[in-house]
Amino acid sequence: MSKGVTPQSKDYAKWYTDVVQKAELADYSPVKGCMVIRPYGYALWENIKSELDRMFKDTGHVNAYFPMLIPESFLKKEADHVEGFAPELAVVTHGGGKKLDEPLVIRPTSETIIWSMYKKWINSYRDLPLLINQWANVVRWEMRTRLFLRTTEFLWQEGHTAHATADEAFEEAYRMIGLYRDFAEHYMAMPVLVGKKTENEKFAGAVETYTIEAMMGDKRALQSGTSHYLGQNFAKAFDVTFQNENNEQEYVYASSWGVSTRLVGALIMTHGDDKGLILPPKIAPYQVVIVPIYRDEESKSEVMRYIEPIKKQLGDSGVRCHVDMRETLSPGFKFNDWEMKGVPLRLEIGPRDVKNEKLVVFRRDRGEKETVSRDAFTASVTAQLDTIQNDMLKARKAFREHNTEDISSYEALKARVDAGGFARAYWDGSSEDEKAIQEACKATIRCIPFEQPGTEGVCFYTGRKTKQQVILAKAY
Amino acid sequence: MSKGVTPQSKDYAKWYTDVVQKAELADYSPVKGCMVIRPYGYALWENIKSELDRMFKDTGHVNAYFPMLIPESFLKKEADHVEGFAPELAVVTHGGGKKLDEPLVIRPTSETIIWSMYKKWINSYRDLPLLINQWANVVRWEMRTRLFLRTTEFLWQEGHTAHATADEAFEEAYRMIGLYRDFAEHYMAMPVLVGKKTENEKFAGAVETYTIEAMMGDKRALQSGTSHYLGQNFAKAFDVTFQNENNEQEYVYASSWGVSTRLVGALIMTHGDDKGLILPPKIAPYQVVIVPIYRDEESKSEVMRYIEPIKKQLGDSGVRCHVDMRETLSPGFKFNDWEMKGVPLRLEIGPRDVKNEKLVVFRRDRGEKETVSRDAFTASVTAQLDTIQNDMLKARKAFREHNTEDISSYEALKARVDAGGFARAYWDGSSEDEKAIQEACKATIRCIPFEQPGTEGVCFYTGRKTKQQVILAKAY
Repeated sequence: MSKGVTPQSKDYAKWYTDVVQKAELADYSPVKGCMVIRPYGYALWENIKSELDRMFKDTGHVNAYFPMLIPESFLKKEADHVEGFAPELAVVTHGGGKKLDEPLVIRPTSETIIWSMYKKWINSYRDLPLLINQWANVVRWEMRTRLFLRTTEFLWQEGHTAHATADEAFEEAYRMIGLYRDFAEHYMAMPVLVGKKTENEKFAGAVETYTIEAMMGDKRALQSGTSHYLGQNFAKAFDVTFQNENNEQEYVYASSWGVSTRLVGALIMTHGDDKGLILPPKIAPYQVVIVPIYRDEESKSEVMRYIEPIKKQLGDSGVRCHVDMRETLSPGFKFNDWEMKGVPLRLEIGPRDVKNEKLVVFRRDRGEKETVSRDAFTASVTAQLDTIQNDMLKARKAFREHNTEDISSYEALKARVDAGGFARAYWDGSSEDEKAIQEACKATIRCIPFEQPGTEGVCFYTGRKTKQQVILAKAY
Repeated sequence: MSKGVTPQSKDYAKWYTDVVQKAELADYSPVKGCMVIRPYGYALWENIKSELDRMFKDTGHVNAYFPMLIPESFLKKEADHVEGFAPELAVVTHGGGKKLDEPLVIRPTSETIIWSMYKKWINSYRDLPLLINQWANVVRWEMRTRLFLRTTEFLWQEGHTAHATADEAFEEAYRMIGLYRDFAEHYMAMPVLVGKKTENEKFAGAVETYTIEAMMGDKRALQSGTSHYLGQNFAKAFDVTFQNENNEQEYVYASSWGVSTRLVGALIMTHGDDKGLILPPKIAPYQVVIVPIYRDEESKSEVMRYIEPIKKQLGDSGVRCHVDMRETLSPGFKFNDWEMKGVPLRLEIGPRDVKNEKLVVFRRDRGEKETVSRDAFTASVTAQLDTIQNDMLKARKAFREHNTEDISSYEALKARVDAGGFARAYWDGSSEDEKAIQEACKATIRCIPFEQPGTEGVCFYTGRKTKQQVILAKAY
């Protein structure tokens, strides 16, 4: 565990799986493509989940739970949807020792089962909007899997809302991608670009897909959350109509939106370094870890007496604090271990600190160590955690800016893609052009950012004038 | 929704499903045996979950997540386990468009997949104990299902712990059934009997199973949570050994324990009456609901101005409070609706109350209504909620005592079982005797209570002398 990880510069993919395993975030399971989320990794997901859940509820959403098993025929009701998901389905053919009359699929996403219920629940405009979220596991049969980033089974939340007007459903999809951006930036310290997906990249069954795209440490893009304006596609597929205020029957309008355990992967690759994880304080399971240093029973009890009130004060300040009391491990081993696990602040406390009423603070994101007065530390700890949180976001923003280039020729795009990073470019190409670029140099249009320059330029691919800029990059 | 439910006295089973549906707790889904947990029902589960999760963490447990799909061969490794679960399995035979080499089963419980991982993680006594819990969905193919009580897919938590000694694993299983009892009594206001299951009734793969058994409103028993001492059964099946402090290899000792969404069914049947749900304040999504009463816009704004600070004060006191602002519904309709949904306290506030600085309080569990001073109410609301919580537990304890009979003959047992309720009896019979009784009169031994009289008596069935008392009843 203390042996360190493959350096990022040597093999980023290997670095990533090393960190996931050595920080005990997840492990491979005996089931192909499925991972085990270990307690430390699950604690990250719990922190992500509880903040998001609060944000969903603050914006009027409620949670519910729908069956995981869906009749195969349901998936087929929306043409784009079945085309998109059919190749990825896990199919239950037997139950209770018998062959089933109709096979059931394990949900790859829940639009179809949920809209089959909305048909039952929605009659009038008075029943709208319906703002339901679900925390659940889903299964998509993936050929090439990577811990957290792409696994056959993963955990996620999926919001499914029903509205009386297109505008309202549209606004909801827009609001939720904004909520995801706020969460990514303020909690995960992960800057994201917000925008629309192209036709090629949108969700199977959506009219429009919005996305947040983050830049990982290897300068590749990671799609970190999406929200979809579904129009009346699923309402039509499941015949869900409502009586509007003018007593007319109309199909219901819909949105859906989700983020998944992939966010844990995003967290690792946004901040991690060659010593392991670096966690933003707001998401870290432990914000402060205390490593006591002692030689014998006497100095141990002295150090522990000194630590006790510090721990209490930190707890009273709402700081998640852990004292590492493992007896068989050396302080040096513990230092490395908590660096691997990305704890924002580590306190080292030995007999000399006790005598001087001081302590040693190690700040993980900067790798800086200093000796400070105990009272000054405890009085300012929450401010220090805030500073770390903000500095981490700032650092990642600077990193992204540094690795984003405005390009105006196909050659420049290829050079940027080879070097890594985001290319920002005017774009007026077709879906076929986009596919051709992807095949030639592996870059895809990550998004059409909501924020546009408003000026006109020349499409780097077609040479036509356009006002639309896009972001291109290699992506996970 | 306001039409009321089938009276309990007429048809208790119908009453139950009426309440589940009219209180909007759950709904039937298009998938056989699977239910949809609606937002109000899910809010109950969330409250149950968050309290239990806190209690688990306070006792040193951590959460993790294991794959839902388990190789079929794993289930077969523990002989009793496979025998118990084989008839209930849902089997995935195809994934990603191809037939799988080995079928995967959807977890009916996770002992096997978890112990296959514990083999990887446990090497030495230093790795023990491992105290892991999982919140998850499971699937058991059930022939006869009932909303919340028995569904093909259900939500639950399953604790799986690994220990260096039998005593420790034993203590853990004992501790956790005690935790469940505390939760049932103090949060759900549901008294339970705690004890051991007989050989016939224990978990498939356990050495011993402990249970909490509650008496429902129709006097039948409901097994509401179980914990198992598994000995070395799963360690042996998955070859999980550890080096003990004497440098010897030894098989690991295990416990597992779980409660499920069945607890929502328990809540309904423990407290509900012919007007619907009655919720204990500690679990209720809303503890207080305010129904404003007004005739015109002027009186409405007057009433709303009066309600605003009351709502704020309740919120500041930590009370979950909701103001029912639905415009198209009459106050009378709302009263019935919130009675159906079991909200502990309902406030009715109209212009006359505003004038007199009063309000009308309706207490759901007692069905009592009184006019009180606003200030007296807000000052005492948390105390009142505590009183309701305690009164509800007391009432159910009295109900159980009233319907529990010491019996000393088979005839008396039959009479008691026909009348409903628990029979307490000395018991020295065999597994075969137990089966014979079950076939003859549908009663099963619910548990061998931990609390025993310590006196000797005569087994009502065999006529032999014994010190062991058991509880017999018809059960869900």
